[in-house]
This record gives sequence, C-alpha cells and structure tokens, in this order.
Amino acid sequence: VIPSKYIEEAVNAMASLPGVGRKTALRYVLHMLSRSEEDVEHFAKALVQLRTHLKRCKVCQNVSDFDICAICSNPQRDNSTICVVEDVRDVMAIESTHQYKGLYHVLGGRISPMEGIGPGDLSISPLIGRLTHTAVKELILALSPTMEGDTTAFYIYRKVPAGSAFEITTLTRGVAVGDELQYTDEVTLGRSIALRTPYQKG
Amino acid sequence: VIPSKYIEEAVNAMASLPGVGRKTALRYVLHMLSRSEEDVEHFAKALVQLRTHLKRCKVCQNVSDFDICAICSNPQRDNSTICVVEDVRDVMAIESTHQYKGLYHVLGGRISPMEGIGPGDLSISPLIGRLTHTAVKELILALSPTMEGDTTAFYIYRKVPAGSAFEITTLTRGVAVGDELQYTDEVTLGRSIALRTPYQKG
Repeated sequence: VIPSKYIEEAVNAMASLPGVGRKTALRYVLHMLSRSEEDVEHFAKALVQLRTHLKRCKVCQNVSDFDICAICSNPQRDNSTICVVEDVRDVMAIESTHQYKGLYHVLGGRISPMEGIGPGDLSISPLIGRLTHTAVKELILALSPTMEGDTTAFYIYRKVPAGSAFEITTLTRGVAVGDELQYTDEVTLGRSIALRTPYQKG
Repeated sequence: VIPSKYIEEAVNAMASLPGVGRKTALRYVLHMLSRSEEDVEHFAKALVQLRTHLKRCKVCQNVSDFDICAICSNPQRDNSTICVVEDVRDVMAIESTHQYKGLYHVLGGRISPMEGIGPGDLSISPLIGRLTHTAVKELILALSPTMEGDTTAFYIYRKVPAGSAFEITTLTRGVAVGDELQYTDEVTLGRSIALRTPYQKG
C-alpha cells in the first residue's frame, strides 16, 4: 500500500536495478526522502552524467572518460599483448591483480545463441582489425570458463588471420587458491590433474 | 580499479544507499550503462521529483502527494481512532493488513538519546494538538517493542492532557503467528504466558 504516486514511481525506478525487489526499492526510496534536496539532485546528476558523458575507448572498447582510455594511452603498458575479455568488470578484476601490463580488448559480451547474441553483436571485427594493423606478440583469450565463453574464444581463434605470428594463450584453469579439493567440481579437478604442472616452491 | 571519474561518481552515489557496498554499487552502475539515455533520465527524474514534490500530510505527517493525505481525507475512515506510529513504513505495514480503519499519526522516529533524537524532533506536539481539538475515542500507541519505542510510548502517554476521555491502547505482544515456541525469545514468551488470553477457536 504505497500512499503516493511519487513514491510509487521512485520505487519502480529502484526496483529496475538488478537484484532489487520492491521491499528493498522502498527502503532505498525512503532513504532518499531523508536526504537533502541538493543531495538527491547530486545523486540523480551522477547517473545522468554517467550515461551521457561516458565513452567507449576507440581502441579497446573499454569504458573511458576520453576517446582513448587511460590504459591504451599509457606508454608504460606493453602494447604487444592484448587480453580479450567479455566486459568492463573483467578489465577491473584483472587490473586489480596488478599482474598484467598489456592492453585489453572488451568484447561487450559473449556469443550466446540462447540470448540471441551473435558474433556481430560483439566487437570482434575491431579486434581482428587491431590484430592485423598492430605488431601483436600475444593474444590472451580471457573469457569465462563457460560454454558461451569457450564458444566465443573458439570463434575468435578461428577468425585470427591465417599466418599470424603471435601466440594465442588463455587463462589457466584449475583449483582456486584456498579451495578445498573435496569441494572442487569434478570437471575442474579432472582438468587440473590431467594438465598438472611441475611442482614449484611457494 | 575504476577507469572513469563518471563511473566513480555514480558508484559513490549508489554506494550511499543503505546496505549497498561498492561491489553492488558497481553492478547497479554498469546496469545503468546498459540502459537507454531516456531511461536513465527517467530514473533520475523519478528521484528528484520524489524529493521535491512529496509532501507531509498536514494532519498526520504521513507522506502524501497532497496537503491532506488520502487516509485523512477519506470520509470512510473512522476519525475517532488515531494510531501513532514511528514512520511511513509502519503505516504501509498496518494498511496492508486491512485490519484497521482509523487514522494515523506519524511521529517521524522515536525518542533515542543515543542517536540524539529528543521529543522535540518528533511530531508529538501536533499529536497532542489533534487529541485536544478533535473528538478522539481511542489512541493506539503502535510503536516498536524496543527500549526506544517503549520510552516514546510512555512519553506520549504522560503528555496526554489530563482528564482526556479516550482509551489508550497498544499492540498485543506475543509469540508471532507461525513461530516455534522453542525459538521464541524468553522475554516475549514470558509476557505471552503471563498475559495469556482465553482460548478461542480458529
């Protein structure tokens, strides 16, 4: 029983966020009510500006405030390595490991016939263009270890121009650090033992 | 590692919602990015309009789109009964039971010395005004069964003008419907057995 059409509309808006039901939406809305008018305007403006001003990097399709993103325009990054990922969150995740100094290519999703997403919906052609016109030494296919991720990786693998000299690699799959063996799924464990590697200290 | 000041600002905004951490905020923000510009503007406008257009009912302080809320202005409601609640959500909760046909009075919180909320911060004086100037037959103190709720109820009880003819009642407390006795806290169970009521079928 919502006593106001303004609350109703705001609840509908909040409930459109992923994973937010009407009860949580109402909680957010009543919280907004307790804030100052300037504060709420600032909140609203942050979202509108995000949507209107945020760009896609012309090189790698990562989100960016500029035409070329901070990673692509950084001369300290190794531009002979390109890591292909599904989405912006993957870039953030890999960046936060501090283990990678190359560039990225953000596909914008993965091939999924179930969801009606084909290769044409992803930035695969721009990737092939990059591979053709720049001196790449390594292409890392860092897609999710799922059916769709594997399909997408294989599709890209086949699209790579014949006679390309660069190496194509992918993320190691195996038992996650800190996981208990007995709770690891059998596909992962099976691969991990089949593709076992020489023991190295620490 | 957030690659954009627009994303950063939007994440900060979303993370200011109650119970939303930075990871969830980022999820909301990336979701906003996938929506159309009009859609995001509509979202933002719903919040700003909520904050600027929503009123407080001049009689009961409930949120309302008009000067007098839909409950107070409804001639079908019993205006001789006033139910005092802490906040808008309590009105919605009681309304959704369809068991109450009287009016409300929304205090806007409860007395809490810990949080620095005193009687002057709540709409207690307007309530006393209503009690003095209208023909009230029953005042229901429907506050939360907490220390602060009890304090607030007692404060209001003492503020009621001497010689008032109306009855003062409160919500029944006891074992919640569907609860297991063994898991009910001992204070609730203790009161429930001390204040036991005659058995009634179904």
